[in-house]
Amino acid sequence: MEEVWVAGAAMNRFGKMAESGREAAARVALEAIERSGLRPEDIGYTFLSNAFGIAERQAHLGPLLNTALGIPDVPSATIESACSSSSAALHEAYVHVAGGFLDAALVVGVEKLSHLDTLAATSYFAMGADYAFESRNGATFPGLYATLAAAHMQRYGTRPEELGAVAVKNHENASHNPHAHFQKPISLQTYLSSPPVALPFRLYDCCPFSDGAAAVVVVNPRRYRKELRSVPAAIRASARTGSIAALQDRSDLTTLPASVRAGEIAFRQAKVERSDIDLMEVHDCFTLAEILALEDLGFYPRGQAARAGAEGETAVGAKLPVNPSGGLKAKGHPVSATGAAQVVEVIEQFNGRAGERQVSDAQWALTHNVGATGGSCSVHIFERV
Amino acid sequence: MEEVWVAGAAMNRFGKMAESGREAAARVALEAIERSGLRPEDIGYTFLSNAFGIAERQAHLGPLLNTALGIPDVPSATIESACSSSSAALHEAYVHVAGGFLDAALVVGVEKLSHLDTLAATSYFAMGADYAFESRNGATFPGLYATLAAAHMQRYGTRPEELGAVAVKNHENASHNPHAHFQKPISLQTYLSSPPVALPFRLYDCCPFSDGAAAVVVVNPRRYRKELRSVPAAIRASARTGSIAALQDRSDLTTLPASVRAGEIAFRQAKVERSDIDLMEVHDCFTLAEILALEDLGFYPRGQAARAGAEGETAVGAKLPVNPSGGLKAKGHPVSATGAAQVVEVIEQFNGRAGERQVSDAQWALTHNVGATGGSCSVHIFERV
Repeated sequence: MEEVWVAGAAMNRFGKMAESGREAAARVALEAIERSGLRPEDIGYTFLSNAFGIAERQAHLGPLLNTALGIPDVPSATIESACSSSSAALHEAYVHVAGGFLDAALVVGVEKLSHLDTLAATSYFAMGADYAFESRNGATFPGLYATLAAAHMQRYGTRPEELGAVAVKNHENASHNPHAHFQKPISLQTYLSSPPVALPFRLYDCCPFSDGAAAVVVVNPRRYRKELRSVPAAIRASARTGSIAALQDRSDLTTLPASVRAGEIAFRQAKVERSDIDLMEVHDCFTLAEILALEDLGFYPRGQAARAGAEGETAVGAKLPVNPSGGLKAKGHPVSATGAAQVVEVIEQFNGRAGERQVSDAQWALTHNVGATGGSCSVHIFERV
Repeated sequence: MEEVWVAGAAMNRFGKMAESGREAAARVALEAIERSGLRPEDIGYTFLSNAFGIAERQAHLGPLLNTALGIPDVPSATIESACSSSSAALHEAYVHVAGGFLDAALVVGVEKLSHLDTLAATSYFAMGADYAFESRNGATFPGLYATLAAAHMQRYGTRPEELGAVAVKNHENASHNPHAHFQKPISLQTYLSSPPVALPFRLYDCCPFSDGAAAVVVVNPRRYRKELRSVPAAIRASARTGSIAALQDRSDLTTLPASVRAGEIAFRQAKVERSDIDLMEVHDCFTLAEILALEDLGFYPRGQAARAGAEGETAVGAKLPVNPSGGLKAKGHPVSATGAAQVVEVIEQFNGRAGERQVSDAQWALTHNVGATGGSCSVHIFERV
């Protein structure tokens, strides 16, 4: 098995893109390649994610992207796994390089939906759920995750103020991230007085609809170590799992089983302990999702992550910095770009470029990316090298 | 590098499906697994293709399929590469098994668009082309491939009767394939008098819009050799390439450069000669595409495949049987199911189950699957073991 390193990563500012997804993908890909120290012609395969490219009337984006990069002959595939699409693409890149099939691969996630009205955008997102049993009957993601939140509150006594603490922390972190969709801190009072969306969720429980693009360059260090221009991140674990998608068929609504197993597999692969992790980017599409992630991944006992967050343990500078980038919640969530953007934050942190959100001496980082309400999950563990 | 075998494969009858893509995918997947001799719980990863699943309002199909198979915990990813989607998925399965990451993987391609009107279905297909420079300006695939046909006719003197010979042969083959969309032979006269679609193409130059599903089980024989129930096909080459997608930017319209290179790479990998191939399934979305494939893959000198086909060299029982299944042209072309269905024909032939279209003593087979007008290409070479 070959070592696999992330050699470079880049993203644009999440929010509303004037340019097309195609143009944004090419721009962030070029930037990631430049930062890595490689040249476009070193790339052996492009793994792209663009789950809702059809909203721009464009499938088969890989050849267009590679042509824009000056490498039209390079093969490509578009990888979709709902909101975990680009972490699924990263897994393919990892397997190709670890298996010795490639020495360098490009992973790009891009999404643009802001030209649609909110109802149309919501309809696209809802296609990640189970159409026959969920979305056809009116369920969209705020409602589905609100169901999980209600169950968690009922079983563990999780309070609105604890959900709000996730939002306040992640908006604070995003205010220090020039690539974040939202760049203003919010107060707990702002959170508590925001309008209900799907109770117990209020407006500030929910990540925004964002456009955005992010790119990651993955290499075999045996071939490219000397070329590298940034501090790389060795991929020590790349774990993917599945689960029953529809909430109605699950036995427990206070956990995402795919997260639990992806975490277990990843920690076995990486041969490190939870306590070794210096920072993590977890899938906080809604405030409750961050709390679930911390419990599912084994960082807190069941029912204790919400309180710990409210007490400040997950802030930058505290015991376990969670979502220093601002997370999906405040950095934004352009579906297919999210997994790759989590890796961008890891690289920024490992390179000491994270400014006021910098986690000092970060050596190990974890990313956790969920597809829909947990029908899929990817967990990656990175070591600074 | 581990050996990789196709252990089983199945498809439904292409045409118009009453059931959903989700249901069809589960049915063919179960059949492929049963035919292989494995059990669903042996599958380690599901690589799905469903490029236009959004037409059924369903993305993230993997967890739904795996849940239907009784293996919800198994990870999945949906792989898109326009019309070459499920051969791109097969490539991922190949890499995971060859690299030792998995012992068994499931590849499923499914597409359902027949509930849409023809204009809407055409619009979906056209998303595989370059939106900004082709489809937005009205170009759809019949017109784009007709442009290639016109160039081929001009340079090589290819005649309508030679295009028609491809249609006549493939309808004849399909008439012996119970899974084919079209099951009636046509005469050259029927071809020549069919209405123009995009000249030089007439109705019978074009593959139909088909619904359909196909599944392939890929294994490491070191782990599963004893379980196998069918004659397996060893994957001796799995090659993927890219190319400039937009026709306007190509220097030559009488070749698909991605096919040329995929063929070269595949023959190098497999270490066999063109003359060793006993049958092949090539990407004949339009009659001209079969002629291009035979020239691009090096089976005929430029400008000579059309005549050879018209003289009967590519019929079942002749020198080089091409598309014994009926091909995309007559078996049908449910976009994401096509690449997997080509492998179904290889397995049927290797198992001597192809009835009146059986190629005797087939030992080596090739599949060739093109994305759009050649922005992507996959070539696989199989050996009967």
